[in-house]
Amino acid sequence: MVDQLISATWVAPVRPVNKVLSDHAVAVKQGKIVTLLPLKKALAQWPDAPHEHLEGHLLTPGFINTHTHAAMNLFRGMADDIPLMDWLNNHIWPAESQWMSADFVRDGTELAIAEMQAAGITCFNDMYFFPNVVAEVAQKAQMRAVVGLIVLDFPSAWANSSDEYFDKGLQTHDQVSSYSLINTAFAPHAPYTVSDQPLVRALTLADELDIPLHIHLHETAAEIEESMARYGMRPLERLSQLGLLNPRLLAVHMTQLLDAEIEAVAEQGVHVAHCVKSNLKLASGFAPISNLLAAGTNIALGTDSVASNNDLDLLSEARTAALVAKAVNGDAEAVPAKQALEMLTINGAKALNLDTEIGSLEAGKSADITALNLAGLATQPIYDPIAQLIYSCSREQVSNVWIGGKQVLKDNHHTRIDVNSTLARAKEWGAIISGAGAPSN
Amino acid sequence: MVDQLISATWVAPVRPVNKVLSDHAVAVKQGKIVTLLPLKKALAQWPDAPHEHLEGHLLTPGFINTHTHAAMNLFRGMADDIPLMDWLNNHIWPAESQWMSADFVRDGTELAIAEMQAAGITCFNDMYFFPNVVAEVAQKAQMRAVVGLIVLDFPSAWANSSDEYFDKGLQTHDQVSSYSLINTAFAPHAPYTVSDQPLVRALTLADELDIPLHIHLHETAAEIEESMARYGMRPLERLSQLGLLNPRLLAVHMTQLLDAEIEAVAEQGVHVAHCVKSNLKLASGFAPISNLLAAGTNIALGTDSVASNNDLDLLSEARTAALVAKAVNGDAEAVPAKQALEMLTINGAKALNLDTEIGSLEAGKSADITALNLAGLATQPIYDPIAQLIYSCSREQVSNVWIGGKQVLKDNHHTRIDVNSTLARAKEWGAIISGAGAPSN
Repeated sequence: MVDQLISATWVAPVRPVNKVLSDHAVAVKQGKIVTLLPLKKALAQWPDAPHEHLEGHLLTPGFINTHTHAAMNLFRGMADDIPLMDWLNNHIWPAESQWMSADFVRDGTELAIAEMQAAGITCFNDMYFFPNVVAEVAQKAQMRAVVGLIVLDFPSAWANSSDEYFDKGLQTHDQVSSYSLINTAFAPHAPYTVSDQPLVRALTLADELDIPLHIHLHETAAEIEESMARYGMRPLERLSQLGLLNPRLLAVHMTQLLDAEIEAVAEQGVHVAHCVKSNLKLASGFAPISNLLAAGTNIALGTDSVASNNDLDLLSEARTAALVAKAVNGDAEAVPAKQALEMLTINGAKALNLDTEIGSLEAGKSADITALNLAGLATQPIYDPIAQLIYSCSREQVSNVWIGGKQVLKDNHHTRIDVNSTLARAKEWGAIISGAGAPSN
Repeated sequence: MVDQLISATWVAPVRPVNKVLSDHAVAVKQGKIVTLLPLKKALAQWPDAPHEHLEGHLLTPGFINTHTHAAMNLFRGMADDIPLMDWLNNHIWPAESQWMSADFVRDGTELAIAEMQAAGITCFNDMYFFPNVVAEVAQKAQMRAVVGLIVLDFPSAWANSSDEYFDKGLQTHDQVSSYSLINTAFAPHAPYTVSDQPLVRALTLADELDIPLHIHLHETAAEIEESMARYGMRPLERLSQLGLLNPRLLAVHMTQLLDAEIEAVAEQGVHVAHCVKSNLKLASGFAPISNLLAAGTNIALGTDSVASNNDLDLLSEARTAALVAKAVNGDAEAVPAKQALEMLTINGAKALNLDTEIGSLEAGKSADITALNLAGLATQPIYDPIAQLIYSCSREQVSNVWIGGKQVLKDNHHTRIDVNSTLARAKEWGAIISGAGAPSN
């Protein structure tokens, strides 16, 4: 017996085959996928199982957002049309130093999770202060998360010293070990904000705990220049010398890469979180993802925070990544729709070292499933459901979402989050922050 | 007395000021805007006028889509991840030669208009076969349109010879002169599909009729190379010698421009329809819009057809244009949100020579108004409604749309189009075209 059957007109399992199956069902038991099979067979085999059929819908693996600062949802639209270092130094960091608290992180993260679940995202890889709070909010909302054990050289409301970042990070790691949906990563912020000693310590601990290392890397030309001036080498070279270039590393952004660096990254098995909209908006540059893919690097997608994006819409990241890659490489065949779907799903799972658990609709994996309604005006007629998904579909077409077999979005309504309360708190924060002098109209 | 008051929490009139007004009302009489004023004053002045208030919404001028092939909605997703000339020669043109008819254009255009109205687009500038049918469908749907009197060197289901294109174009121009919402433009397809004599004839007639000239121009590097081989000059130089470079010309795409050409285009007052997503998807290149804007050129936005996009979502074009311009110029301040809003509205009106009639919420202009609901998860909190509109808002947040004072979208429902019938016909066409061998999954 199985617990439930979820079926739809089209199913794109991504693995073992990256193609569309018509009228198939996903059989789920105890939160895991038992098998994927034709709907008729499923109904014959388990005639009494609870069954939800979504006519005109497409089922995919839940989308995996490999780079977020979820709580920053409370800063959405606070400082636009500004370059990275000005944006950080004169807007984001001052606002964070003024407002950062466990409450801020709780309310901002809940707003972000509500937005992500509505957009078909079933797992996010976060880097922010109070990761213990992020973990609590996520677990309660039935949201899968990798919480980053953040490390910085400078003090914050979360920790006052390098040692305290590590102590609190390790405490958080222990605390969340009992949370079914939460994993951790070490998250040294960036080469320009973390010195050698804590970088090496983060690597050592990540090895011991067998968790990923999550870092901003080669985001802007200014970062490279600063590293040359300070260390006499590019950040990638510095990280290489410190031993960080390996399959544990998830390098975020990577817009500034020499050909030799593209080869080195591929050879070392480093994963890349491609945050294309953030890179465009902050004028950071174009990550050479076609060349990285050609060299064999695993490319996943990240929204970054809404302060530089300004949404948590991974489907639009996939579309933008596919479109921009074509123009950057002058090749309309670059990053075709099926590859973009892999970047949305299985590649994210690989980047987080969770690909035995999530990233595809395969037997034995967790039932993290996103359903999209393709019946509307904007996705008709349908010649190829995967092309429709990547090039035409909007996140508002996400209708139902399951995480670990539990339904978190049912007919576009959240089941685990009180959206009215979440919105009310977001508006309160907006009023408080605006009153304190953030740009307002 | 006025016919109605439409008010909202925020109003962005674009002109005479491009800023957000709080709690203002638009007073409408006989389809035209009488005035824009604070809501309290409006209620005091016209206490008995029918009044619709949209709390938490933003009102803007209706969006103006300056480049479409609306009927091609029936080809959405038929041929993706393919470069322009392969896409045209081996997919689109064969499909058109097989399926083109007045019925195809009627059903495809209706699907497109339904999609555009739902997305806040109140005017589209079309280039396709059977423009008489496009005009009929648009007028019936209370949709403002500029229908292109298409000219090509080769025969189609619409016309067999250059003379017949002109004859039928002029007939269409006469036919639609009584349609309240329809204007015309001459629309020679492109320099590579129209020879000198019909280009000059189109210019002469456009001058006589005082209508715009709408042409694809400098879309790809291959177009430039072919022109060099065939005419010994670049297409812009050829059009310049033929006298086409003037404020009547709406040049679509313009991804391939030398610095001197940017200057020439600005000096001659040529308007540019920027179709950023189509340019990315077909790997045509990056139109240098920041440099064009700096030189003084009017830049409007176009979706192009859904066969190369794959949606009719002008708000996402504005966002993508703003994001991509920043990365192309390495300048996070390039195309800020307010400028993107101008590109969505008043710049489109100027490009179509309709800026005395539409493009802003000013007294005397037509009441073409788009309302967007900013109350949801994806646009909270709100520090700057225009930044939210450009960087966070999706077309699904368009809630109400008026064209010529008549409401065509009411609480997300179409009032002039039978969406079920439109969708049913789209599905029928999809089945017919798939059955005939279009790629299918």
